[in-house]
Amino acid sequence: METKEVIKTRRSVHYFDTARQITDEQLSELFDLVKLAPSGYNMQPWEFVVVRDPENKKRLRRCAMNQKHVEEASAMVIVCGNMNPGKYAEKIFDDWVRQGYFGERSKEQALKQVRGIWEKPEYRKIWTTRSTCLSAMLLMIAAKDMGIATCPMEGFDPEATAKEFGIPDDVMPIMLIAMGYESKPALPRVYRRPYEEIVHHEKF
Amino acid sequence: METKEVIKTRRSVHYFDTARQITDEQLSELFDLVKLAPSGYNMQPWEFVVVRDPENKKRLRRCAMNQKHVEEASAMVIVCGNMNPGKYAEKIFDDWVRQGYFGERSKEQALKQVRGIWEKPEYRKIWTTRSTCLSAMLLMIAAKDMGIATCPMEGFDPEATAKEFGIPDDVMPIMLIAMGYESKPALPRVYRRPYEEIVHHEKF
Repeated sequence: METKEVIKTRRSVHYFDTARQITDEQLSELFDLVKLAPSGYNMQPWEFVVVRDPENKKRLRRCAMNQKHVEEASAMVIVCGNMNPGKYAEKIFDDWVRQGYFGERSKEQALKQVRGIWEKPEYRKIWTTRSTCLSAMLLMIAAKDMGIATCPMEGFDPEATAKEFGIPDDVMPIMLIAMGYESKPALPRVYRRPYEEIVHHEKF
Repeated sequence: METKEVIKTRRSVHYFDTARQITDEQLSELFDLVKLAPSGYNMQPWEFVVVRDPENKKRLRRCAMNQKHVEEASAMVIVCGNMNPGKYAEKIFDDWVRQGYFGERSKEQALKQVRGIWEKPEYRKIWTTRSTCLSAMLLMIAAKDMGIATCPMEGFDPEATAKEFGIPDDVMPIMLIAMGYESKPALPRVYRRPYEEIVHHEKF
């Protein structure tokens, strides 16, 4: 689909057709696009827990203010961000050196900077939220293009979700995204703050 | 352009053609798409400071580790998030009531929840980073579709930037996005973590 059409027609969908399921092939196609999102230092801190089993969706629903569409969606994605990018940094920066992005000395400096993120408990949450949410938007765009409806959700308990789904301490659940096929047309789009209000020229 | 093509060919661009400028009409077209991003409670916390004046780009470059492409980009966008969504909440929720999304009583509950975000100093930063970064990704996708190259940047000093560009205390500079026309082809795309590593089935 044309990009403008995808952006203009994407909506947050709350009613899913429980008879139509998302396949393994679709998940693979989808996340092969999602992984192309940009990220700070190319650290790709995103981790996606895809929940399709009915019992597991029930458990997730209990972590998400009992919202019905968690169970009705074909797949729920727990979008998580790794707060400890040092974990993957060496492998990623080795590729930068190979591709001519920078030399060994710059690699050592970058490694030091990236490892420093973990040392700042408040900043590391913001850092991973930033890049992970870029991938979350790409997920919703790519899904819409594939005919799959989505709904981003922030009304859930990250601690309870982490505990239920084995998410380790250095990984932060950031949002949920419900995915599936729309079962009834959405209500009209709600108010958006206009261009004149959101864009500031030269200064705030 | 086809959505998949945009996602696959979008790259972070560091070299801009200083002779080609982004017009007012393009900015207007771009942000009319960006404003369609989803956000928590539809609060649309994003604020974009667009810097095109050469002297102002010089000032921003000084806040951004002296990176050359800040000055060479046609337009720099300071992507900010409002941490105090209560500011716009009444107007936005009135529209929800008008469109049949919920009634007056639910509106009062939602207003209370949204106003509560400001009361949590650490959470409000994560909250606004989340929704604002969804809009930032949409900006990069919409720009690419319009033939405009972008580069997201997190290497900058948010406090200095806020001071230089009159950004108020309750608004947080989250990232910079350089925009313009590419002046030389990008190096090959660097390593991406594969599907098998980023997608976890049923549990982490």
